[in-house]
Amino acid sequence: MATMVTPAEAEAEIRAIMHERIDAVRDKNAAKLVAHHAPGVLSYDLLEPLQYRGIDAVRQRGQTWFDGYDGPIVYEIVGLQVVAAFDVAFCYGLHRVSGTTKGGRKIDMHWRATQGFQRIDGAWRIVHEHASIPFDMNTGKVSFELKP
Amino acid sequence: MATMVTPAEAEAEIRAIMHERIDAVRDKNAAKLVAHHAPGVLSYDLLEPLQYRGIDAVRQRGQTWFDGYDGPIVYEIVGLQVVAAFDVAFCYGLHRVSGTTKGGRKIDMHWRATQGFQRIDGAWRIVHEHASIPFDMNTGKVSFELKP
Repeated sequence: MATMVTPAEAEAEIRAIMHERIDAVRDKNAAKLVAHHAPGVLSYDLLEPLQYRGIDAVRQRGQTWFDGYDGPIVYEIVGLQVVAAFDVAFCYGLHRVSGTTKGGRKIDMHWRATQGFQRIDGAWRIVHEHASIPFDMNTGKVSFELKP
Repeated sequence: MATMVTPAEAEAEIRAIMHERIDAVRDKNAAKLVAHHAPGVLSYDLLEPLQYRGIDAVRQRGQTWFDGYDGPIVYEIVGLQVVAAFDVAFCYGLHRVSGTTKGGRKIDMHWRATQGFQRIDGAWRIVHEHASIPFDMNTGKVSFELKP
């Protein structure tokens, strides 16, 4: 099994992919954002609808996200946890973004994100992704002000 | 390695745990709901705050959820996908709940959920959980009416 990696190597590979993701967002590069996604990825995004199917849908959603910002997007992942076997892994953490929208609104928000990976033909692929903000039961609204 | 299981066996074990979860919700049994959680589970819940740490917090949240319903909770998981290695796994799908709240409100809603598992001392444990409803960017609100 030439593709066998140890859990520690697998974790390092996943962390490198998530680091690339940070670069992709800072570069506003939607193609780079999905460079490690599987063609059939199923994504649960921050925004409706319930699910996005396939890498094209995820890339387009990324492009729309980037297009909404005027100037730089400041982006980091706080407290990333990685759980990895040799060919299956998942990770989770809080994603923080700040910047100014084209409408002039200042953003500084956190959301939660989970990625599920499979190692296919020797390369890790994101087969599932889940990003969200929790809501307040009384108002039915999410808050962009939540801090960890 | 006495605890070694094949990916197919691992998937069957995860599906059995998720089936128990369905029973736990229908029984409104919060202890059963967390019977396979790790003590240090990190949960991203539907409701604020951003994260819940530890099995006690998850059980209490489950109890509050169950206490909000008058009579039976109808609960199912739609299209559950399981990705499993011998000691790491994750699964995701749409969770549907219907019933009547103690305030007399009829509920029939879907949300997205992802569970991350580690096999520890021969037993699968949920170490991470993520449940959410996406929001509408124009209103900042989630919709309980979303269907897959």
